[in-house]
Amino acid sequence: MNFTSVQDVQDVAALVREAIDLKKDPLAFRNLGRDKTLGLVFMNPSLRTRLSTQKAASNLGMNVMAVNADRDNWAIEFQDGAVMNGTTVEHIRDAAPVLGSYCDIMGIRCFPGLVSRDTDYSEHIMKQFIKWTGRPCLSLESATLHPLQSLADCITIAEKRPVHRPKVVLAWAPHVKALPQAVANSFAEWMCRMDVDFAITHPPGYELDSKYTGDATIEYNQEKALEGADFVYVKNWSSYYEYGRILSQDPSRMLTEKLLAGAPDARVMHCLPVRRNVEISDEIADGPRSLIQAQAENRVYAAQAVLKRILLEK
Amino acid sequence: MNFTSVQDVQDVAALVREAIDLKKDPLAFRNLGRDKTLGLVFMNPSLRTRLSTQKAASNLGMNVMAVNADRDNWAIEFQDGAVMNGTTVEHIRDAAPVLGSYCDIMGIRCFPGLVSRDTDYSEHIMKQFIKWTGRPCLSLESATLHPLQSLADCITIAEKRPVHRPKVVLAWAPHVKALPQAVANSFAEWMCRMDVDFAITHPPGYELDSKYTGDATIEYNQEKALEGADFVYVKNWSSYYEYGRILSQDPSRMLTEKLLAGAPDARVMHCLPVRRNVEISDEIADGPRSLIQAQAENRVYAAQAVLKRILLEK
Amino acid sequence: MNFTSVQDVQDVAALVREAIDLKKDPLAFRNLGRDKTLGLVFMNPSLRTRLSTQKAASNLGMNVMAVNADRDNWAIEFQDGAVMNGTTVEHIRDAAPVLGSYCDIMGIRCFPGLVSRDTDYSEHIMKQFIKWTGRPCLSLESATLHPLQSLADCITIAEKRPVHRPKVVLAWAPHVKALPQAVANSFAEWMCRMDVDFAITHPPGYELDSKYTGDATIEYNQEKALEGADFVYVKNWSSYYEYGRILSQDPSRMLTEKLLAGAPDARVMHCLPVRRNVEISDEIADGPRSLIQAQAENRVYAAQAVLKRILLEK
Repeated sequence: MNFTSVQDVQDVAALVREAIDLKKDPLAFRNLGRDKTLGLVFMNPSLRTRLSTQKAASNLGMNVMAVNADRDNWAIEFQDGAVMNGTTVEHIRDAAPVLGSYCDIMGIRCFPGLVSRDTDYSEHIMKQFIKWTGRPCLSLESATLHPLQSLADCITIAEKRPVHRPKVVLAWAPHVKALPQAVANSFAEWMCRMDVDFAITHPPGYELDSKYTGDATIEYNQEKALEGADFVYVKNWSSYYEYGRILSQDPSRMLTEKLLAGAPDARVMHCLPVRRNVEISDEIADGPRSLIQAQAENRVYAAQAVLKRILLEK
Repeated sequence: MNFTSVQDVQDVAALVREAIDLKKDPLAFRNLGRDKTLGLVFMNPSLRTRLSTQKAASNLGMNVMAVNADRDNWAIEFQDGAVMNGTTVEHIRDAAPVLGSYCDIMGIRCFPGLVSRDTDYSEHIMKQFIKWTGRPCLSLESATLHPLQSLADCITIAEKRPVHRPKVVLAWAPHVKALPQAVANSFAEWMCRMDVDFAITHPPGYELDSKYTGDATIEYNQEKALEGADFVYVKNWSSYYEYGRILSQDPSRMLTEKLLAGAPDARVMHCLPVRRNVEISDEIADGPRSLIQAQAENRVYAAQAVLKRILLEK
Repeated sequence: MNFTSVQDVQDVAALVREAIDLKKDPLAFRNLGRDKTLGLVFMNPSLRTRLSTQKAASNLGMNVMAVNADRDNWAIEFQDGAVMNGTTVEHIRDAAPVLGSYCDIMGIRCFPGLVSRDTDYSEHIMKQFIKWTGRPCLSLESATLHPLQSLADCITIAEKRPVHRPKVVLAWAPHVKALPQAVANSFAEWMCRMDVDFAITHPPGYELDSKYTGDATIEYNQEKALEGADFVYVKNWSSYYEYGRILSQDPSRMLTEKLLAGAPDARVMHCLPVRRNVEISDEIADGPRSLIQAQAENRVYAAQAVLKRILLEK
């Protein structure tokens, strides 16, 4: 079993319940991972993902070995047949099986380059790690998806769910940098599998790949989109169609209390790190609507539920 | 319970005895920290502190997760209300509680900038970590203090204490770089709480904040200050009043055997790293007077005594 | 007991058998290293060595603490009597005993500068670590030798050994960078202690120090050297006599199937990382002759056999 997308999960609701059970008793399976090693490969920096995954593994009794393999330190070649007389020092065909021989489960983080959409959306880095390690692989955020984040988000929504079928809105917000679409794509594909009304609001030009957004309502008018929302997921992303570009920094898209006038019960979510007073106002971040810390805490149980399943399958 | 200064300790002598007991049987409390996680945040590099604290935690059966959060990798915003459209990527109000949710105790290292005395002496970084993690916090050296080093120094003095009330001299020594006052401030405030005669010698202009030096004798004449000393603590620091400046590199202040002519029984201390033949001569560093290695070894038991207390309080 | 060369091993065949036994039951000695700490000092980057040694230590129940001490972060002074008013911040005489006081066994990685042969071949860095830590020291690759790699290579050869006395050939291959002689020196000195026919082939000018190659046959004609080989160890190194220089990048020395026409049963070895289609062709690396992954996997059991011996001696 790999875990790189919601496609790897048969029953999302069951996985969410499993995570919530683990949260009640995190050490209930403390010996399940005994003598098993989780290898974490960070092609890009990580803080929350690293710590929460380490904690999850430790709750299951696993050993963790982490490798910081950013492109400068350990330049991996991904091209088959390459004549390696340049700057790459090791081929993925050689590097990955070595990691696989030292570890029982692998976690991989690899960001998109945001230059070529075809390259990024081919997920060639993640796919080659999966192909060549010969071990179950866990995405710690890939070029296009961030499934552990989305699972943590689903846990958070399940915990705070109102009695009615909730309205969930993914709301694009401005940012100073061009960011990947991974969190947005991933949240969309998980929401499409949850029992929720799902809408997305963003300026024209920020449409995501419909492969992930499915039947979600796309509503360009932000106020209209937010009306009656139970959960508002704030996130910036760069353009998918004009790939990697910043098309808008419209400050009126920063989430504020005023924008939520039509959604008195809305809880606000963000995956962190958040640019305060750019993506979201302090009043929201520090106010009672915020679920941001709950999401971060649930990262542990998301990772733990997935690791538990992989350990039980082996 | 936090541990950021001698002010956090009611009975210094009792804490020193506790550390000495742990040194005799480091694994006596090997299960005390079971299932507890110590999170270490390094805003600045660390070697001795990192390893000794890790060892201490491991002796108590704790898990350790370390984060290298230097200002380049993970630029944290500390200003309330900041519009984060610049280079900082995450606010301490968001980052710290996440760490707190993954860890039971936090250790923080944050050096001073040596540009603004007010900024550094406000200890805003340490204070905000304490405020926002919601966990007991351990200073791994802050802008103005280094209490784990000072506790290790007190242990070392207690171990080697003569029968009479010892004379302890903090002796400024030259250095090629402008260094923080943290070790000197901290040593001074701990010595003021120990049963010792405490004097400080340095060139004019190197006076420390009297908040830390209390009733210590300030003696500019180095030879006179060293006369009859039982313990000489060698350390460089930059000026407090002409903040962060190097006012002297007077080579006659390097500690040598000749300078200790009037202190035949003096033992010499330094917190490391030491610039040999600049701060201290080889003959001293390699001679029988040196307690430098004993101090470094005692770092483990200093950290262990403090972690033990925090674990027992929780 | 230190482990820095084959000279530290009395009976190579016995150590190889011990490693093969550990491979069959890696956790057979899971409590041997309980409460013992292995300290790893990386003066240079490491991936395979770091992970395999960590895994080996973990199989024996040891704790591991790693220090990334590359020359930029923690510039160590190795010169006795140095006046440290320059860029080095801590003397090995001070740094090493501190590490020794926190750890039971030390592992050290230190590459050659490839500027001065005398400096590199004096192994002053490794020797001073050994002298001043006061603990058993394990080479994780030094300026001139890589004994854990060679032991893993011996294990691999022992596992795949034909019934007859095998012919082993160390074959120089081209590379884009000037590499150390360490792996080649080390492989040579271990082969001289194994029950094999050992030959070396390289372009003129690439002769290794005869101290390591002993009675090995030096055959400049590559095809002739490879004829009838059972094991071909491919490796680049820079010139020993014209120290650190690249004298040839002759592409005909890249190992291909064609070159192995006269060695139908030859298995091919490389210590990784390998420059594909420069040192070795894809057809070899991906073909049935390759033992490259087996070597990498055996790194764990090489390290584990050595750590086990050190633990039993203490």
